Amino acid sequence: MKKFLNNSSKVSPIIRATNNGKDRGVSLPKTPTGIQGLDEITFGGLPQGRPTLICGSAGCGKTLFSIEFLVHGATRFNEPGVFIAFEETEEDLRKNVASLGYDLKDLADRKKLVVDYVHIERSEIEETGEYDLGGLFVRLGYAIDSIGAKRVVLDTIESIFAGLPTPSILRAELRRLFRWLKDKGVTAIVTGERGDGTLTRQGLEEYVSDCVILLDHRTREQISTRRLQIIKYRGSIHGTNEYPFLIDERGISVLPITSIAL
Amino acid sequence: MKKFLNNSSKVSPIIRATNNGKDRGVSLPKTPTGIQGLDEITFGGLPQGRPTLICGSAGCGKTLFSIEFLVHGATRFNEPGVFIAFEETEEDLRKNVASLGYDLKDLADRKKLVVDYVHIERSEIEETGEYDLGGLFVRLGYAIDSIGAKRVVLDTIESIFAGLPTPSILRAELRRLFRWLKDKGVTAIVTGERGDGTLTRQGLEEYVSDCVILLDHRTREQISTRRLQIIKYRGSIHGTNEYPFLIDERGISVLPITSIAL
Amino acid sequence: MKKFLNNSSKVSPIIRATNNGKDRGVSLPKTPTGIQGLDEITFGGLPQGRPTLICGSAGCGKTLFSIEFLVHGATRFNEPGVFIAFEETEEDLRKNVASLGYDLKDLADRKKLVVDYVHIERSEIEETGEYDLGGLFVRLGYAIDSIGAKRVVLDTIESIFAGLPTPSILRAELRRLFRWLKDKGVTAIVTGERGDGTLTRQGLEEYVSDCVILLDHRTREQISTRRLQIIKYRGSIHGTNEYPFLIDERGISVLPITSIAL
Amino acid sequence: MKKFLNNSSKVSPIIRATNNGKDRGVSLPKTPTGIQGLDEITFGGLPQGRPTLICGSAGCGKTLFSIEFLVHGATRFNEPGVFIAFEETEEDLRKNVASLGYDLKDLADRKKLVVDYVHIERSEIEETGEYDLGGLFVRLGYAIDSIGAKRVVLDTIESIFAGLPTPSILRAELRRLFRWLKDKGVTAIVTGERGDGTLTRQGLEEYVSDCVILLDHRTREQISTRRLQIIKYRGSIHGTNEYPFLIDERGISVLPITSIAL
Amino acid sequence: MKKFLNNSSKVSPIIRATNNGKDRGVSLPKTPTGIQGLDEITFGGLPQGRPTLICGSAGCGKTLFSIEFLVHGATRFNEPGVFIAFEETEEDLRKNVASLGYDLKDLADRKKLVVDYVHIERSEIEETGEYDLGGLFVRLGYAIDSIGAKRVVLDTIESIFAGLPTPSILRAELRRLFRWLKDKGVTAIVTGERGDGTLTRQGLEEYVSDCVILLDHRTREQISTRRLQIIKYRGSIHGTNEYPFLIDERGISVLPITSIAL
Amino acid sequence: MKKFLNNSSKVSPIIRATNNGKDRGVSLPKTPTGIQGLDEITFGGLPQGRPTLICGSAGCGKTLFSIEFLVHGATRFNEPGVFIAFEETEEDLRKNVASLGYDLKDLADRKKLVVDYVHIERSEIEETGEYDLGGLFVRLGYAIDSIGAKRVVLDTIESIFAGLPTPSILRAELRRLFRWLKDKGVTAIVTGERGDGTLTRQGLEEYVSDCVILLDHRTREQISTRRLQIIKYRGSIHGTNEYPFLIDERGISVLPITSIAL
Repeated sequence: MKKFLNNSSKVSPIIRATNNGKDRGVSLPKTPTGIQGLDEITFGGLPQGRPTLICGSAGCGKTLFSIEFLVHGATRFNEPGVFIAFEETEEDLRKNVASLGYDLKDLADRKKLVVDYVHIERSEIEETGEYDLGGLFVRLGYAIDSIGAKRVVLDTIESIFAGLPTPSILRAELRRLFRWLKDKGVTAIVTGERGDGTLTRQGLEEYVSDCVILLDHRTREQISTRRLQIIKYRGSIHGTNEYPFLIDERGISVLPITSIAL
Repeated sequence: MKKFLNNSSKVSPIIRATNNGKDRGVSLPKTPTGIQGLDEITFGGLPQGRPTLICGSAGCGKTLFSIEFLVHGATRFNEPGVFIAFEETEEDLRKNVASLGYDLKDLADRKKLVVDYVHIERSEIEETGEYDLGGLFVRLGYAIDSIGAKRVVLDTIESIFAGLPTPSILRAELRRLFRWLKDKGVTAIVTGERGDGTLTRQGLEEYVSDCVILLDHRTREQISTRRLQIIKYRGSIHGTNEYPFLIDERGISVLPITSIAL
Repeated sequence: MKKFLNNSSKVSPIIRATNNGKDRGVSLPKTPTGIQGLDEITFGGLPQGRPTLICGSAGCGKTLFSIEFLVHGATRFNEPGVFIAFEETEEDLRKNVASLGYDLKDLADRKKLVVDYVHIERSEIEETGEYDLGGLFVRLGYAIDSIGAKRVVLDTIESIFAGLPTPSILRAELRRLFRWLKDKGVTAIVTGERGDGTLTRQGLEEYVSDCVILLDHRTREQISTRRLQIIKYRGSIHGTNEYPFLIDERGISVLPITSIAL
Repeated sequence: MKKFLNNSSKVSPIIRATNNGKDRGVSLPKTPTGIQGLDEITFGGLPQGRPTLICGSAGCGKTLFSIEFLVHGATRFNEPGVFIAFEETEEDLRKNVASLGYDLKDLADRKKLVVDYVHIERSEIEETGEYDLGGLFVRLGYAIDSIGAKRVVLDTIESIFAGLPTPSILRAELRRLFRWLKDKGVTAIVTGERGDGTLTRQGLEEYVSDCVILLDHRTREQISTRRLQIIKYRGSIHGTNEYPFLIDERGISVLPITSIAL
Repeated sequence: MKKFLNNSSKVSPIIRATNNGKDRGVSLPKTPTGIQGLDEITFGGLPQGRPTLICGSAGCGKTLFSIEFLVHGATRFNEPGVFIAFEETEEDLRKNVASLGYDLKDLADRKKLVVDYVHIERSEIEETGEYDLGGLFVRLGYAIDSIGAKRVVLDTIESIFAGLPTPSILRAELRRLFRWLKDKGVTAIVTGERGDGTLTRQGLEEYVSDCVILLDHRTREQISTRRLQIIKYRGSIHGTNEYPFLIDERGISVLPITSIAL
Repeated sequence: MKKFLNNSSKVSPIIRATNNGKDRGVSLPKTPTGIQGLDEITFGGLPQGRPTLICGSAGCGKTLFSIEFLVHGATRFNEPGVFIAFEETEEDLRKNVASLGYDLKDLADRKKLVVDYVHIERSEIEETGEYDLGGLFVRLGYAIDSIGAKRVVLDTIESIFAGLPTPSILRAELRRLFRWLKDKGVTAIVTGERGDGTLTRQGLEEYVSDCVILLDHRTREQISTRRLQIIKYRGSIHGTNEYPFLIDERGISVLPITSIAL
């Protein structure tokens, strides 16, 4: 039994998909991330024209993942991108990725990237208790249109939805945001913070999302390892195991488990 | 002792049921799902004319399970079906299952399937705090009657009941929904999200349901496996162990444990 | 030490009780359940004229246990019974146990059984927030008197007490219900749903009850086993270990651990 | 290290206490329980003239422990006792202990025992939200004086204090109850229900009590064992390990670990 | 690696401190407790002129620890002490330590000790919801001045702060109490009850305290052991391991791990 | 697989960074802490001109870490520093670090250090429920300017933000504080208390911070060890494993795991 499962889960899904994918219906169109190893285990990248949720705890690499998605889009796939930052200013972000050889300013000058730092003042929250989603749409729409962006990142979802009063309203607003992004036709990444015993802070975002990727940072016996897992991918077969990944001066590299000799 | 249990739980329930089922009373009528392996471990399928709860966490395969139930019903058992979608639009759903070779549009054209995307606006929730069950009955009833549907899927129950104020009212409304479905004579699937340490978000739905199937997605030592378990099946003997299942380009395949040589 | 405990807990309580029970005071009168194996480990059955709490999670077999108690009472011990159902209609219940060879309609016709489905409307709860215990007493009293019932089942306690505002009022109302049942002289079963880390949903019912039996449904290493444990039995010695039980087409069979050769 | 601890904790406390107890100050006066084995591990019994908290989950033997304390007091140590019952009527209690050969009625007739069933109506709770401690003192004082009782049992503390609004008021009222019992000069047992991860329901009672004994009922690998542990004993050395105990037709027997050859 | 850590943590801190302590700055002045073994692992005792928090669950020995601190101070170090008791009366306390050969009355007569039992009535709490810290300062100040006390014990902190409305106010009041004690120049012990998963009930007291000692009472495999750990000691190096300790008729003895041959 | 991970995580990140760091973009400027071993695993120290969060439970060494950062800055790197203390007075702090050979008074006299003890009265909190951030900025700005400070410590963040009403306001205020510190151009340490199952008390601070270091104090099998882990470091590669560290009379020493022969 054990043997059966191990075999099938490690090897066959990939092989089957490669061989038989076209024998049946049409596969969902995908957008390559350019992140080493990831496009392999997703059989092509993130769902095109849909939002993907990237979740994980502090220091897991969410922001770096998102930046790479935009930079590779702009430089390798000719898809301009918009980064809406709630946590870091444009300048901080630029400095943070400079060591990876990414020059955000150059990309911005070449109309390949817009970084928009949205600074939420306490007074804005205190009046209504929540962030104005309509205002975000205007601002984001303008940024997208200004460079014909095909990729969007919202970092992080908590900044947008922290003040919502009930789970049902959160659910409705999440759907509203995701619907807006789909209607805009962009392939989007929305980052989310890890909850206590749940994938996300509210334990709700992952149900509404079409695609969910978990970045994990685990320490056992003093050794820390990073793992990536595709929790969910509506409309696509995908590897379901945890894949180790590294963050080094070349950015993120995911190690597809099948490429490792045991 | 251990030996005794293992023997009986692995082998004998199935054998006993096959041999002796007719020797005693009349068995509950069942509706085949057409999902590979499932009809075997349920001794025939889901309880006919009753609702079944399919629960699991994000990415467990709830929606795919539900779609297969309807598609097989429409194509192999001549039972038209209705899919009430709260999470995905008809178009998204269609794209998502295209890779499995399912053509939802064709089924809809042939009056074998109705997909109805119910879009809940925030304003609707804010007025009363809950979704209008009466309105759902009208809409669902119309869809059922329009094609003479025998199968119904509601995806997901959380969308309907998230705003209910107390557990006792939730219980009453769940019974009201299930009673309506039974009166309508349809075999229904209602999907539910996993709770924190409970089968369902409220830890209540599973008690009110006649049949409960749990889809689990578990990661141990970096290897992910999917398991299906029949938690409850009023009026029927059923296998109680966890059964591994796969999701690949041919859809869901449950592996009845008895068919595996150890 | 270990050896000492194992010996005493597995073997001696039963032997001692059998030999010495009459040497001392008078034993509490008991009502046989007719459930295979259970009357052995309880040394005679449930406490006569008192309510017993049967608790467990969804699918554990609470309702089946209760039905068997009534059916065996009616057919083998000449004790008519009343089943107050909050979860299932009379018809559903009838269908559910037909496969076990139980004909509830025939028993009802022969005045051996009354099944009363109590349907709680949302509007009833919303007015006072709780179910009317006085009304239940009238209804239950009438049913008992109509056939001279000696056995009663209330399925489930959650339906009755879900709306009570505080633990102290719940405690008072539980005592009121149990007192009423005792005054009526019936041997009763009240079913209760499992709580999160507690035996019952409120973690209170088991303290007020004279007799508590836990039905457990456990999955380890993909193999599921059912266990029954007598948590509490005021006024009686009882086996305290967990006993495996089966549910098959012959109903529930408890395996008294002493009858198994290791 | 391990060896050192094991030796000292298993053997030496008892030996040291026996030898040296009188060499130093005066030992706290104690009241023998007459429960087999318990007076040995407490070096004489419960603290005389003080209340002791006996806590444990449903079915752990709290009430039986309390009854034995009173019956042995009345029959072997010439100390009449009062049992204030909130959970069981006098008649139920009488029946429950009859199988142990205890005749509560005879003891009552001989002025050796008063059993007073205090029935708390819902209406009493609803007015003030809590039980009237002053009324209890009057009632209990009358019962004590009527037979010159030296021992008192209150079963259970939850019935008295469930409605108190805050932890600080609970603490104040617990002290008030314990102070009243001490002023009355009786050796008392107060029973308490197990909390979720705490010794008692409120996690507070054990700090206010002078003596705390935990009765545990544990199931491992399907085998159930009972354990008794003296959590706290102000003013006295005591065995601190867990001691196995049995409940059979001769009542409770605690097994002092030192009397067992390993 | 493991070897390195074990070596350093078991042996070297003590050796280094003994050798090099004077080579660098001035060590914090300390007050010997006189408790066997403790002054060794703290390199001299508790921080002089500062409050120390002693925390642990019911029966861990907090009060006994505190009493020994005062008795040894009065008899061996010529430092009179004040014990503010919220849980036990002076008489109860006296009886409880008599078996250790401590005569509190004699110490009181010789002006070496003041035991002041502060009885908090429910009515006092109900008015303001909290205990009057100002009143405590007056009372405590009077007791200190009356015998020129150098040591103070407050048993327990929960009695003082249970009614405070918010964590920030608790923090402010804790600082106020600790500041008052420091200004008074006394070496103080404040006892605290264990919280659920935290060192203290509020999980806050340990951050505000200069020195924190945890008394633990652990049961594994039926054998109970007591452990003492210095969680925190501002301004001093200290052993950080858990040290076993005994409570017997000679009081508390801590076993410095270095003095045990393995 | 395992082998692969261990190799890469233990050895290669350091080597790669040393060799290739300059081959790509510009590395983030860093401020050396002077703490033995730490500057090695951070490849240079803390992020210059940004705030770093140092979190851990009571007694973990947060304050000592912060003091060393300032003292080394003042004495070895010619960077004056400001310490805003909420927990300890200047005098207490001075005494506490004297044993390490640090003379805070001398540093203050030489204009290398300002220690400012901010005493929050209960009355200040009760009026608005929170601490006045604007007032802190004035006070801190004045202290910074008075000595031209380049380093700042705020000990602890809980003292500043404990009274904030909601997570979204806390998030906004944290950003406001961090932004102010960045605008001031100082390299700052903000200390935070450990939460229950989260890195920080609110589980929020670590997401907003650019750099997060966890100090852990763990006891296993009675042996206590200290571990340091860099949870997050925006814009920099860093060692991700747990590194053991010691606190002795020479202060904190972190042991870079690569320097240990296994």
